[in-house]
Amino acid sequence: MADLARPARRGLMLILSSPSGAGKSTLTRTLSQKETNLDLSISVTTRGKRPSEIDGVHYRFIDRDAFDLLRQRDELLEWAEVHGNGYGTPRKPVEEALKAGRDVLFDIDYQGTQQILEKAREDVVAIFILPPSMAELRSRLVRRAEDAPEVIARRLDNARDEIARWSVYDYVIVNDDLGAAYESVRAILVAERLKRSRAVGMADFVETLLAEKVS
Amino acid sequence: MADLARPARRGLMLILSSPSGAGKSTLTRTLSQKETNLDLSISVTTRGKRPSEIDGVHYRFIDRDAFDLLRQRDELLEWAEVHGNGYGTPRKPVEEALKAGRDVLFDIDYQGTQQILEKAREDVVAIFILPPSMAELRSRLVRRAEDAPEVIARRLDNARDEIARWSVYDYVIVNDDLGAAYESVRAILVAERLKRSRAVGMADFVETLLAEKVS
Repeated sequence: MADLARPARRGLMLILSSPSGAGKSTLTRTLSQKETNLDLSISVTTRGKRPSEIDGVHYRFIDRDAFDLLRQRDELLEWAEVHGNGYGTPRKPVEEALKAGRDVLFDIDYQGTQQILEKAREDVVAIFILPPSMAELRSRLVRRAEDAPEVIARRLDNARDEIARWSVYDYVIVNDDLGAAYESVRAILVAERLKRSRAVGMADFVETLLAEKVS
Repeated sequence: MADLARPARRGLMLILSSPSGAGKSTLTRTLSQKETNLDLSISVTTRGKRPSEIDGVHYRFIDRDAFDLLRQRDELLEWAEVHGNGYGTPRKPVEEALKAGRDVLFDIDYQGTQQILEKAREDVVAIFILPPSMAELRSRLVRRAEDAPEVIARRLDNARDEIARWSVYDYVIVNDDLGAAYESVRAILVAERLKRSRAVGMADFVETLLAEKVS
């Protein structure tokens, strides 16, 4: 059955949050490209699909009735309404992944993180990425050259709101070097996979070990 | 004062336990050689110094009165009597290291681990190293060629007692490859250093960040 030297373990939910510009998107992309056994969580949304988006890749696009039904049945690990559109994370695919020993990566904000923590504390590993300074965060947003000055000002205000929630998280990384921040996130993932509390196959493994006739 | 991008943190106690032959000594040695900011804990003992031993390096050699006084004053994080000799870990140098943000490495068994867990749960990261099989553990003890067959048989019996205590530990690593096991221990150390609960300087760091006048 299972590889004896790799006792079965329950998967975990790896949550990465940070203000816009602190490096979360790059870290998320790099992790999901480099890491095996790590699924990127796909949200459902009621908003219309944009031409560049693929259903089932960027979001699962569902109608309002389906969304409301998921909510009523408590089948969303977290959800939010933004500009009249519903967004949420269905519980079932995540639960299936965890049971199969696969990890799931979430790129969400502190509100979603708090909701998931309330529903599944033991399965969650929540990481917050901080910028080294607000000046550096601003420079990154300016260098990115995606936003008008007033949009950058708004992003900095939102960043302050997000940063103020750092204490919700299990781990806090100050991203003053993207490579080092990536290694930190990876070390957290490697370590959390080794937690005894997730090693659902370890009792059997040890039992087999102790039953070995060797002297 | 402190490097602003490196908020002060409280150190941690890294405990490595394993049955004899499972790789603990090699891992401990490699860690304390390669890792900066990780002190190897030095026990006190009442037993006589052997010619090859250096006071303050292998042990601190103290007399029975001094040992009993440490015990009575609850100044030992853990202690044991073995063949009429006292062994123990003084609390004070460890507490000083943790306060200064330095980590301390312990190579102790499950009994010592349990005592330290009772006294300082929040500061402890306890790792248990398992052999992939008892047959492999036996081969390693035989290859090591240090012990007579009856000693090896006794070590295997002791190993079974130790292994049965795996669930005391925070992390469990099956050592089927020493390099991989080392990387696992290192990832745990890196991750645990990033825990929000140890980041005693993070609240100040975030406050400074939020006070920055940037828009």
